[in-house]
Order: sequence, then structure tokens, then C-alpha cells
Amino acid sequence: MIIDIHGHYTTAPKALEAWRNRQIAAIGDSAAMPKASELRIGDDELRESIETNQLRLMNERGIDLTVFSPRASFMAHHIGDFSVSSTWAAICNELCYRVSRLFPGSFIPAAMLPQSPGVDPATCIPELIRCVEEYGNVAINLNPDPSGGHWNSPPLTDRHWYPVYEKMVEYDVPAMIHVSTSCNPCFHTTGAHYLNADTTAFMQCLTADLFRDFPTLRFVIPHGGGAVPYHWGRFRGLAQELGKPLLRDHLLGNIFFDTCVYHQPGIDLLLRVIPAGNILFASEMIGAVRGIDPETGRHYDDTRHYVDAAHIDDAARHAIYEGNARRVYPRLDAALAAKGH
Amino acid sequence: MIIDIHGHYTTAPKALEAWRNRQIAAIGDSAAMPKASELRIGDDELRESIETNQLRLMNERGIDLTVFSPRASFMAHHIGDFSVSSTWAAICNELCYRVSRLFPGSFIPAAMLPQSPGVDPATCIPELIRCVEEYGNVAINLNPDPSGGHWNSPPLTDRHWYPVYEKMVEYDVPAMIHVSTSCNPCFHTTGAHYLNADTTAFMQCLTADLFRDFPTLRFVIPHGGGAVPYHWGRFRGLAQELGKPLLRDHLLGNIFFDTCVYHQPGIDLLLRVIPAGNILFASEMIGAVRGIDPETGRHYDDTRHYVDAAHIDDAARHAIYEGNARRVYPRLDAALAAKGH
Repeated sequence: MIIDIHGHYTTAPKALEAWRNRQIAAIGDSAAMPKASELRIGDDELRESIETNQLRLMNERGIDLTVFSPRASFMAHHIGDFSVSSTWAAICNELCYRVSRLFPGSFIPAAMLPQSPGVDPATCIPELIRCVEEYGNVAINLNPDPSGGHWNSPPLTDRHWYPVYEKMVEYDVPAMIHVSTSCNPCFHTTGAHYLNADTTAFMQCLTADLFRDFPTLRFVIPHGGGAVPYHWGRFRGLAQELGKPLLRDHLLGNIFFDTCVYHQPGIDLLLRVIPAGNILFASEMIGAVRGIDPETGRHYDDTRHYVDAAHIDDAARHAIYEGNARRVYPRLDAALAAKGH
Repeated sequence: MIIDIHGHYTTAPKALEAWRNRQIAAIGDSAAMPKASELRIGDDELRESIETNQLRLMNERGIDLTVFSPRASFMAHHIGDFSVSSTWAAICNELCYRVSRLFPGSFIPAAMLPQSPGVDPATCIPELIRCVEEYGNVAINLNPDPSGGHWNSPPLTDRHWYPVYEKMVEYDVPAMIHVSTSCNPCFHTTGAHYLNADTTAFMQCLTADLFRDFPTLRFVIPHGGGAVPYHWGRFRGLAQELGKPLLRDHLLGNIFFDTCVYHQPGIDLLLRVIPAGNILFASEMIGAVRGIDPETGRHYDDTRHYVDAAHIDDAARHAIYEGNARRVYPRLDAALAAKGH
């Protein structure tokens, strides 16, 4: 079985974006604010948006199951207040849940949270509970910078975030650390902000002792860990300089990297440097890079091809494709086991 | 000949830091502001600080010449106003110049600029002129985020920066794009802010057409290009998505990466992905990572060892060690030629 732990609903019917635009336009004008119930998307529309896109590519590439969450760049937690984010998160999470019901063998949901700049993350707990208990979500996406590129929240290791971690530990769900759209003109969203956030989150964890407080807390750092594996020697040396344990003891019981690295040399580096037990297969398709690489004739984001071509043994490949995901996402494992997988 | 294009004066005599602390303490109190002339550091002190540190390691590692600039993390452009930065930059640049006069075969200076948040970069031109014309500087360090982690300056491709570029083109000096200390608690200075800035700068150039306006402008992106080579497929795909030319045509005539990547797999990736003509040898020693790697028994920042061990041909190795530096830093080449090298 091949599990892709990083998929977003980037192909939702246009009505979703239209509703969101109405919501944004109505910020500050409660009379104009659209109700969630005004958004109507039928099952046929959902089905078509998936069958012609993600599911088609999953079938072509031999991917069995995708952990599926709302479109990352559309979370846009910086827009509006908590109420705006709350309504928007509820809508987006419900859509991913519905996709998981329409294609129960192929998609399992992960939740976005109704984060909002300057608002206590504890306010996200009700949506988290709903998504896990009612929708069967197996993970959450946690945005370390709800401001969208201004980075004015405390680091992930600050107690500010602990209410979310307590609930994650209780439910035994991991968080993918994933920012959203950058509204800072310095940072291109998918070419800089995403990768910077990955590196930043890892280094925040390196300098602190968060996992001493939460030994079972698990973070998935997407996009192949940003700059981290490429600079693994730098990070090992910085940990040493700071008097921290070896990274494998300090962080690798709790931090995992996905394989969203869109060329063979990058995947080869990742697999050479990071232990196989810390790497989870993912493609983030259909996402930031949708084209076909003229050097290979295949989609940049066809990461299965790179992992297949890498010089690793079968045990490592099985761990990356399935075993690690089942260990890091116990609710995913339970859902599969319940179906006899 | 082996040229290290990325060295900072991180080992300056303590009197420098003491003077800086007095300067910082006196911000807003002009009567207490120390004069530059109150800092007195003798040639013997300079000599010792270099002979026991950088020069010792250069000799051990077989590095002939270092492009030497003021300590990056101490530039701290976010502290005080332009006048504070201006005095500080002048002091730091003079010290690097003096080092280059004391060890003319081993060090050649590069300048920090008196940048200050919100201040027109054109104000940096007089210091740039002085450093090139009087001190023989062969390059500058340009900070894309003088705020120290708040990223509120325009992108490097904005006309805001053009006065500096015009002078760089006139003098034919490259800029290393290098941030300073982060005062944003989200970003660890050397573990996140530096690498993020490298990635950010590259992506800013990718989305724009700066080098159409300045065809001979040259940027050196340090720390192995941040996350860029590891995600080269992503960047190629993003350029394609944005309708830009192939990266080699769009950016690689003007952008170069150094080899400050502190483990063998990272250097191997860099050399596999980026054309040899765009890679310049560097170690940034004595810098962020000063320890000895227990996996190799050698200093993490002994990057010569990684480049020597890489599977590249002699022509590529010569280009990385010497040829590219002489091409990208024409004033360095001229200085060497004047000495018969």
C-alpha cells in the first residue's frame, strides 16, 4: 500500500472560492456576511472534482490513499478575525470529510484549524474535536505563522501553543506544520514562505525542549523539511554548540519529514541523510508545481518515481510508503485495520 | 590557489564589542555616544586575532586567500538609526581593511553597508565608494532585511535597491546577500534566518526580471543557497509555472552559490545540481558552527574536505576553488594579477 500523507483539496468546485470571496468582501459588514448554508456543492460536483484530478493521478501513479486536508494557501488565517476563520475552517473541513465519505478507500481527512493572528490557539480546540470525533480526521495542519509572513506569533515551543498540543496528545494525532499564503511581499508563498517555515519550525524545536514536555507529540515537517536535510551537518553542529543531544535523540522521535521534493537529487539527499523511519511519502499534488519536468518528461510532483528510483532497500521503501504513516498517524492505522488492511 | 569567498571577522579583539556596546547604550543620548576615535586596537592585536584563528585554520586546510568582511551577525542594521549604522560600518570596514594590509597575501576585504531600516539604500553609497576606492574592497555584503527578521523592506528586485546596484555595476563588484542577527524570536539567526534569507532572495529574483535591468549584476547567495539546490526541481517548476525562462538562462548568469554546507551529502547535492560555474568555494569559518563533527572527526566548517572528496573533475574543482571567484570578483582577479598570480 502507498499512502500519500500530504494532499490538499486544491481542486474544489469554484463555488467554494466564490463563497470565500463574498465572506472576505463582507468583513466589517455583518449584514452582508454570507451564511455557511449559502454554500451549496453537490456530491456530484465533489466527485467530479476529485475523479478528474487527484484520484486520476493517484491511479496513474499507484497511490492508494491520501491524507487530505483543505487547500493550504487558502487557509489564509490572516484574513478577518477568529469568527471569519472559524466559519471558513468549518466549511473547508466539512468538504474534505465529504470527499473522504465519497471515496472512503482513497482519502482520509486532516483538519485545518480556525487560527487567527493574536488569538489564543485554544480557540481552535472545538473544531479540532469535531474533526477528530465526528469526521474521523487523523491529523491536523498547524500554521506556525497565522499572520501570513509577519511571524509575530510565539515560536512553536512556547506555551502559547500548548492547548493544541494537549489535545493532539490526547487524540494521538500528529500535526503537519504548514503555513498558508504569504501576504508579505518579500516572501513568495510556495517558493519561499513554505520552505522558510519548515526550516524555522525545525530550528525552533532544536533550540528548545518541547518534546520533553510532550514526549508523544509528533510534527510532520513538509516539503522535505525545507532546508533542513540539505543542511543536516549545520543543524547537527548547531545542536552540539547549544549543548543539545544528538538530533536523532533530541528530535527524531517526534519530527518527521515528507517527500515533497521535486527532483531526484533532492530525494536522494533526503534518503541519504534522514533515517528511513522519519520519512513519509507525500507528493502535495495537485499543488504548487503542476508542470511536467522537461528533463524527465514526468510531473515534477510525481514523487513516487523518485522514491522508486532511489537506492534504498525494500524495508526502507515500505516504511516510507506505508509503515511510517501508520505509526505516525495511529488513527489512520486504526481506520485501515478496521477495513482489514 | 584556493580562495574562500566567505569569511567574516568573527574574532576581532574584544575592544570592538565593548565599543559597540557603549554605542548601543548611548542611542538617544548624544552626549554619551562614543567617538569612533575612542576605539583603539593595535596592529599587534589584530595580527594575533587573525594568526591564532582564521590564518591558522587557513594554513591547516590549505586555503590561500579569504574574502574577508565584518562579522555578519554583528552588522545588526536594526539597531539605532543611519548615523549609528554608518559609524559602526566605517569602524568594521576599516578593521577588515587593516587585516588585509597586515596579511596582504591572505585576506582581501569585502564591505558591510551602513543600512538602516526604512532608510534609502542610496545612503550607503559613500561607504561603498570609500571601501572600493580607498580600501580595495572587492565585494559588498547586502542585507535584504535590515530590520533583522521583520522583513519590511521591499524585495531585492524593487527599485528601492537600484542605487546600490548602479554603483555595483559601475565598480563591477558582486554582492553577497547576507542578513544579520534576527531580533524576531521566531527565527534563530544562523539556523533559520540566514537560510531563509538565502531562499527568499533567490525566489525574489526568480519572480522578477532584475537582471534584465542589470545584466552584469552579480549576487552570491551564501550557505549553499539556503534551501534552493535541495529544491531545485521545485524552483525549476515554479519558474516554468510563472512563464520564466529556464533557470540557467533566467538566473545563473547572475546568481552564484557558495559551499558553506557542513556535511558531505549536502555538498554532493550542491555539486550534482548546480553547474560548477555557479559554485564558489567558501567555509564561513570561524562562524556559526565551530565544533568537530563526531561522525568525521573534522570541523563541520572544513568545507575543503567535502569539495575534495566530491566526485567532480579537475576542471570543475579548479573553477570552484579559484576560477569562478576570479570571474565573479574581477577586482579580486585584478589584485591577484597585479601580484603575478
